[in-house]
Amino acid sequence: VSPQIAALREYADELRALGGALSLLSWDERTQLPAAGGSWRARQMATLSGIYHKQLISTDLERLISAAEDAHPGSAEVRVMRRDYEHATKLPSRLVREFSEASSLSQQAWAQARRDDDFTTLQPHLERVLELSHERAECYGYETERYDALHDLYEQDSRAAELEPMFEGLREPLLELIDAQPPADLSILRRTYPLDAQTRFGEWIVTQVGYDMASGRLDPTAHPFCTSIGRGDVRLTTRYDEEWLPGSLFATIHEAGHGIYGQAFDRLELPSTYGEAPGLGMHESQSRMYENIVARSTPFWERYFPDLQAAFPGTLDDVDMETFLRQVRVSERSLIRVEADELTYNLHIAARFELERSLVNGTLAVKDLPEAWRDAYQRWVGLVPDNDRDGVLQDVHWSSGSFGYFPTYTLGNVYAAQFVERCRQDITNLDDQWRAGEFGPLRDWFDEHVYQHGRLYSGREFVQRITGGGVSSAALVTYLRERFAG
Amino acid sequence: VSPQIAALREYADELRALGGALSLLSWDERTQLPAAGGSWRARQMATLSGIYHKQLISTDLERLISAAEDAHPGSAEVRVMRRDYEHATKLPSRLVREFSEASSLSQQAWAQARRDDDFTTLQPHLERVLELSHERAECYGYETERYDALHDLYEQDSRAAELEPMFEGLREPLLELIDAQPPADLSILRRTYPLDAQTRFGEWIVTQVGYDMASGRLDPTAHPFCTSIGRGDVRLTTRYDEEWLPGSLFATIHEAGHGIYGQAFDRLELPSTYGEAPGLGMHESQSRMYENIVARSTPFWERYFPDLQAAFPGTLDDVDMETFLRQVRVSERSLIRVEADELTYNLHIAARFELERSLVNGTLAVKDLPEAWRDAYQRWVGLVPDNDRDGVLQDVHWSSGSFGYFPTYTLGNVYAAQFVERCRQDITNLDDQWRAGEFGPLRDWFDEHVYQHGRLYSGREFVQRITGGGVSSAALVTYLRERFAG
Repeated sequence: VSPQIAALREYADELRALGGALSLLSWDERTQLPAAGGSWRARQMATLSGIYHKQLISTDLERLISAAEDAHPGSAEVRVMRRDYEHATKLPSRLVREFSEASSLSQQAWAQARRDDDFTTLQPHLERVLELSHERAECYGYETERYDALHDLYEQDSRAAELEPMFEGLREPLLELIDAQPPADLSILRRTYPLDAQTRFGEWIVTQVGYDMASGRLDPTAHPFCTSIGRGDVRLTTRYDEEWLPGSLFATIHEAGHGIYGQAFDRLELPSTYGEAPGLGMHESQSRMYENIVARSTPFWERYFPDLQAAFPGTLDDVDMETFLRQVRVSERSLIRVEADELTYNLHIAARFELERSLVNGTLAVKDLPEAWRDAYQRWVGLVPDNDRDGVLQDVHWSSGSFGYFPTYTLGNVYAAQFVERCRQDITNLDDQWRAGEFGPLRDWFDEHVYQHGRLYSGREFVQRITGGGVSSAALVTYLRERFAG
Repeated sequence: VSPQIAALREYADELRALGGALSLLSWDERTQLPAAGGSWRARQMATLSGIYHKQLISTDLERLISAAEDAHPGSAEVRVMRRDYEHATKLPSRLVREFSEASSLSQQAWAQARRDDDFTTLQPHLERVLELSHERAECYGYETERYDALHDLYEQDSRAAELEPMFEGLREPLLELIDAQPPADLSILRRTYPLDAQTRFGEWIVTQVGYDMASGRLDPTAHPFCTSIGRGDVRLTTRYDEEWLPGSLFATIHEAGHGIYGQAFDRLELPSTYGEAPGLGMHESQSRMYENIVARSTPFWERYFPDLQAAFPGTLDDVDMETFLRQVRVSERSLIRVEADELTYNLHIAARFELERSLVNGTLAVKDLPEAWRDAYQRWVGLVPDNDRDGVLQDVHWSSGSFGYFPTYTLGNVYAAQFVERCRQDITNLDDQWRAGEFGPLRDWFDEHVYQHGRLYSGREFVQRITGGGVSSAALVTYLRERFAG
């Protein structure tokens, strides 16, 4: 590489080193931190975030980017660094500080409001956060609607005008499939599964699908996540419930999907300038693919059900694979997003997208949100919550200032279905491979089409390159119909 | 506090936040890091160290210090910050870099030389490190001899001219005591002690002596250490050997002594400007006090031997406390420092002090070091190693550039004995308290006389304030005679 690119990569390495230290502080906070260490840790992370931000808006970086642009006009690698830089310099520091304080207060108010089932406790805080979010969106700028400026923070290049038909295309097919499912029976999954056996099986099954334990770990935590600390160090966490097997099993495989994506950048030796995913939707495409398309598939359990039986001696002896699989795929209309199944989940997201789009674009006031929530749930899910705790107060996202985040969950499902549809054309015996416990070719395909490009393309561009078309829910509907109406 | 002091403390908090992030990266490296994450972690830590150094030599800090000096002439708190700043700015960055590279290479050469028992592999690297150490010492400056400039890095205010009589005062009394001990019998300590029982007993016993587990943790590692990550977060590590009980037991209590010291600054709410120990010798005084003076005492085991028996059912039923205690106090002349007992240890250090003083002052050449080592061991320990692996190649300190470090180990023993001698005058029933498992008054005494002052005094000044006299090995000799010739 040229000296200009080498210098830029060196700077990106330093940013990654600092960012990784922040990731470690956060991982440690959620897995290891002594009880008394919490408040100082928050302050410690704020200090490091400040230093990170300073490095990101440094004129040193601007000079390196300009030099690289002169030497390599049109380089995609330089362009993503320019974008980061421009982005980081757009907000006045006064707004950054006010937003950080307001969203911190608002999160606390949310916890209280949720406990008391009292939206009015949250309302003034949420109004303030929304007001500052409007201001942020105006600083970032947008083409057609304000919502896009915030959504773009989580999924570069994705636009509300395209999300709308995507969600519309899901409503009828999903409701039809959900209502055609047999009555929910989860009795097998609610048997007793000892925690250490769950841990051992989880550690083993993630390496089966392609996660590299020599470059990672799996630790218990309250809310499962995956985090990249540095090269050769991408960690998973999960939670365990002795009487709810899917709680750890599918959460672990979900995080392993993120982990496989995160580990690929180091395995393929991508530079720090672009060696990461272009957005949360793209990242979610991999976690949802491994969790649902792979680990809820028939061939997967044809291979691994005997291992699962052996991992929990005596617990599953009377169960056949088909019965187990039926429970793993149970679907019914529901009110709570985090407990929703593969089919229902996207409807929960659709309702939220509609509401947050109106909030950000200024056509819905915070005071009217609880009623709008009930209307939206009636329309999208066909159920209305009895109270706000099971309604508008169930998620922290908006209170923490994350407007525009929710659609990335469904984008993940949509991308995954589009990618796998294409992958099945290239690898015609994918099911046979999974039935044999072979997941290498699947990962190789993603190495070639996705992972090796890091964030040089957006999700929309990846879809275009891979399928020749645009982002569309058609592939997801096809896949879900095959699985749930087959 | 005044606005000037408040601003200085705020800056010190930021430095501590960064330093704590480095400590966490290091703790994690030694307890959690996946195998493939090592090389990037080293680089990550170098990046953060660079940022830390930049913050330490920043003109922003200099301005804050100057403003605080104007507002509070003679303030000890401001003085320690000034000292840090001056110190950090004394070395040219060229020398910092060269020293870092040379000592890294030299450490690698040391590992090889030790494996091959071949000093000549190390010699040129050690010569280079010593040459750069000479240069560093000249940059830091000194009053009477070059050695003091380097020793001061580890124990502020301590001087070779005072260490010499201290060590001289130990030689005859220690050799006499060692030779009067019964033949070594360690058979009880080499029985089988299951690892999980060792872990549980260790976690329990450290809280007995005053370590707060809500502000810390205890994890396994290869080389035990204690590290302060942040307020409310001071962690211990230890190692376990199923057939060598003291390996974990006394190492754990040793680290807990460091931990109790480290936790005191937060418990007493000291600001980050001076809320730490003034040197390694002072820190070691607490670890050695808890490890040896407390946990190898008769009253301690009168209280805890039944608990130890209960922790390892069946293993110690045939053993009485006196026999156990005799083995815990075994002493004999030896060649290897890290395996040395409470008596012999200081002789190992004395030999090293003599040698490194000559190396740094320029009266001993590296090529003559192996022979000088054998001479020194003959004189101090009365034993001569057969080979360099068990001689000059046994420690990494010099190869890593740490000249002037070794005496802090014995200074710790000396300080501890001087402090406890005085403490026993204030608390006349200290032994009775320990026999009752009461360690609160001991810690309270150190809160008042040591911990609350952070690093506002040097070790020498603490000794002066507490005993009214200078640093002297007399109290250590008195204590050791009482224990080993009693």
